[in-house]
Amino acid sequence: MSAPSQAIGIFDSGVGGLTVMRQLMRLLPQERFIYFGDTARLPYGNKGRDTIVRYSIENALYLMQKNIKLLIVACNTASALALSELQERFTLPIIGMIEPGAEKAINTTRSQRIAILGTKGTIQSGAYQEAIYKRAPQSWIMPVACPLFVSLVEEQWLHHPASRLIVQEYLQPLHGTQIDTVLLGCTHYPLLTPLIQEVLGDKVALVDPALGCAERVARLLGERDLLSSMRDKDHEYYASDDPEKFRVLARSAFDHSIHQVLYSAPSPI
Amino acid sequence: MSAPSQAIGIFDSGVGGLTVMRQLMRLLPQERFIYFGDTARLPYGNKGRDTIVRYSIENALYLMQKNIKLLIVACNTASALALSELQERFTLPIIGMIEPGAEKAINTTRSQRIAILGTKGTIQSGAYQEAIYKRAPQSWIMPVACPLFVSLVEEQWLHHPASRLIVQEYLQPLHGTQIDTVLLGCTHYPLLTPLIQEVLGDKVALVDPALGCAERVARLLGERDLLSSMRDKDHEYYASDDPEKFRVLARSAFDHSIHQVLYSAPSPI
Repeated sequence: MSAPSQAIGIFDSGVGGLTVMRQLMRLLPQERFIYFGDTARLPYGNKGRDTIVRYSIENALYLMQKNIKLLIVACNTASALALSELQERFTLPIIGMIEPGAEKAINTTRSQRIAILGTKGTIQSGAYQEAIYKRAPQSWIMPVACPLFVSLVEEQWLHHPASRLIVQEYLQPLHGTQIDTVLLGCTHYPLLTPLIQEVLGDKVALVDPALGCAERVARLLGERDLLSSMRDKDHEYYASDDPEKFRVLARSAFDHSIHQVLYSAPSPI
Repeated sequence: MSAPSQAIGIFDSGVGGLTVMRQLMRLLPQERFIYFGDTARLPYGNKGRDTIVRYSIENALYLMQKNIKLLIVACNTASALALSELQERFTLPIIGMIEPGAEKAINTTRSQRIAILGTKGTIQSGAYQEAIYKRAPQSWIMPVACPLFVSLVEEQWLHHPASRLIVQEYLQPLHGTQIDTVLLGCTHYPLLTPLIQEVLGDKVALVDPALGCAERVARLLGERDLLSSMRDKDHEYYASDDPEKFRVLARSAFDHSIHQVLYSAPSPI
């Protein structure tokens, strides 16, 4: 039996999932979070399905040992490739980014024309496309893999002329398509919002699945009487590579101050 | 006791080490190579020392089980962070990229001014700097971390205007320094040679440590009477992530045709 006082577990391939955690903390300020970043094995975006499924199961088992009441897969690639395997294997409620992101995009678009930006893994999986078509079969979808975006964010080249050229190159196919909604299908991409918005113009709405994810978590915890009412709480952060690198990147690139990150490696399955 | 007919083992974080293998195959066409790319855990360039040492030991043990006569650490970051630990732990001859690269750079420069391009891990380790100063204490060295280069190569943006801007940005500090030699301290960088040469001009020499590495391997095998005289031989390729991804990237980005890549994961230590 789960209890309201238990923490919510979040895993991501690295630091990017902090953009998801931020939305969760805003909507659910009384919840305690345990975050695991698999920095020793990142990125997930261009690796194969078998590898990502294995990593995701290991990460989930690791967080479940910490007695969590709910698991969030903050990494879009892991959500796209491994969520159904996780849900088949574990009875704990597990929420990914794909369904909430697809729902948000459908509720946002008026032209029924949506672009999905993501890693190669996310785009090639077809998970977002499928989730959108299932709900809104009349949609017209343009998937775009943007593999260089993550590096640009981690280098903090958010306004560099080279970044602008790269954004322009990836988003070139959107011109003249009447796409009015762009789904930011990778945790790093929200940090490129100003540049993407500049390239696409103000009439295009950018959708961050993290908002939908946080809403879904709040709803699920409410339904199951698992909402916490804690005041004093400490979130916990773990990373599989050098914890100090995690802490520094979290602060510099993601504006997320963390007192302490602990080293931790999930056991191999 | 080793024998000439045994294979040479090579490991790299991924596909990039094929640029090293190519130089080895040119200089030592009668040798048989067993290549392992740790594609499930790449890249190594921005991960911590403890993680890279652990991965390197696992990779070395994996290849040693295949009865190799010599091990090459083709990854510059692993060479910089883990070579001495490997050499302390194993009696097998192990050759990395740092010493051969430093020697090549010293033999090339006339102005005694050398730039080292590499990943953050390689640059921050100071390994190339130390190896150069040890041999040529009067040298003036400029180390430059170029973390975006690997992604550009894997995306095959070798001549894209964005790539030119990125190369210009990283190499900006070299202007007016009388640097005449640039050490390409990462397996991917030789593929950016035309662009780097264009930005720096023809008077600057680009040094690929792979050449020095191949020469050192040839010398060592000769000294120990371990040179092979095989004619018919099949090189072997293993990858820890999806073998097909390895094969496709090897061909598309590195112009290296491989008949078969096998999946293989080193055991955790």
